[in-house]
Amino acid sequence: MKNVLLKIQYDGTGFHGWQKQPGLRTAQGEIEKVLTKLCRQPIETYGSSRTDLGVHAYGQTANFKGTYAIPVENLKKAANGLLGEDIHILSAESVDDDFHARFSAKGKTYLYKILLTKEKDVFLRNYYYNIIKELNISAMREAASFFVGTHDFKSFMSSGSQIQDTVRSIYELDIFEENTEEIFQSIPGKKIILRITGNAFLYNMVRIITGTLVKVGLGKINPKTIPHIIESKNRSLAGHVAPPGGLYLKEIYFNEIKGEK
Amino acid sequence: MKNVLLKIQYDGTGFHGWQKQPGLRTAQGEIEKVLTKLCRQPIETYGSSRTDLGVHAYGQTANFKGTYAIPVENLKKAANGLLGEDIHILSAESVDDDFHARFSAKGKTYLYKILLTKEKDVFLRNYYYNIIKELNISAMREAASFFVGTHDFKSFMSSGSQIQDTVRSIYELDIFEENTEEIFQSIPGKKIILRITGNAFLYNMVRIITGTLVKVGLGKINPKTIPHIIESKNRSLAGHVAPPGGLYLKEIYFNEIKGEK
Repeated sequence: MKNVLLKIQYDGTGFHGWQKQPGLRTAQGEIEKVLTKLCRQPIETYGSSRTDLGVHAYGQTANFKGTYAIPVENLKKAANGLLGEDIHILSAESVDDDFHARFSAKGKTYLYKILLTKEKDVFLRNYYYNIIKELNISAMREAASFFVGTHDFKSFMSSGSQIQDTVRSIYELDIFEENTEEIFQSIPGKKIILRITGNAFLYNMVRIITGTLVKVGLGKINPKTIPHIIESKNRSLAGHVAPPGGLYLKEIYFNEIKGEK
Repeated sequence: MKNVLLKIQYDGTGFHGWQKQPGLRTAQGEIEKVLTKLCRQPIETYGSSRTDLGVHAYGQTANFKGTYAIPVENLKKAANGLLGEDIHILSAESVDDDFHARFSAKGKTYLYKILLTKEKDVFLRNYYYNIIKELNISAMREAASFFVGTHDFKSFMSSGSQIQDTVRSIYELDIFEENTEEIFQSIPGKKIILRITGNAFLYNMVRIITGTLVKVGLGKINPKTIPHIIESKNRSLAGHVAPPGGLYLKEIYFNEIKGEK
């Protein structure tokens, strides 16, 4: 019995999220279809993270078990030959029997991408949260610092989750900026990337933290009130759920957690 | 009778090109549908350039004539409210009666975007020509210099065109490079942008020049043979037609031509 870990990249635009659902095109569904064909037996995968509709992955990971003929070192190329243009296996490696992509995960990094322009950009609409206003980045950085640490993040969880324990640790929340030149992008503007690393995240947590930071950047939330919003455990005090197209599952950590203090 | 010039941006991925065609979604078709609604009369537009399926526009221009109630200064906002997410009017301005977006054009600039990575990038597949090899940029720059000037570009025209006079002037063919950071793109790599300005272009000319420059970059065509390929007027000596998704109609010039010598 082999146990194989895949690292997978996908453009979430054309998928109804990661998790397989009857009759819908999902990333997991596509991967399992191709593996089932290559391994000549029904393959079930265990993904590290259930990304939602429209959310992207730079480094989703998933493992699957089976006894089959195709050598592990041939899997990547063979599977990529059968997969669509918007999903691509970056690596396939043998792991221990007891390895499980979800339960063995020690932490995750997400990116959230924001595009500031004076006019709507039609090209990046599925890949950035396009805001046609200015944002106060230094206020956003001040607010971001309050999220780092171990907190009850109940204010930053969408309803519909069954989870009881809403305490999570954020190890890093950095904000990067890049001015874009006209030749590389249709409308000159600024790209703002949030990079957030934690042990685990609640439902919509990264997108609600982003929505809250955007409201800070717009001057609608005072950055100094973030500790109060966290302590309140009151969803209505936090910001909106930022759109899915700006969110990228960047990396899953199985060993030491990057940035852990 | 008003005559109005529109500047239009569109992501070519979801369009069967600019030109209207029965039963197909085209950029011109979408624009005319919306203008016909706003002006309460059938509107016909005259576009500067017939971009092909999958080709993008940063600055397509088109004019249309009519006698209608809506003020020109309200057209942009009203039309953008009705257009889809992938097409956007950047400006609408009154022009002289005899202005015609195609016949009044004095020159055009196109961009062609190439992405060099070690592994396929799933995110930019519709926006860059993704090449999984290295290119010799200095050889490409040497080759590019031979295209500038007034030449018979018959070697760089796809068949199917009725055009007899294949002499065109290229004023500029510059090559820009940008190394991409991992945080802004899934796979680290290099972006190469060709910027080409001329008085007019033959069918597929920019994409065939690009294909030829890529073959130079791959070492398959010697840059010093470009003058010979031009003089031969032999399509089979030039390179392949580079894919449509890398091509962007950047700007149409109606007054002086940028870069004219």
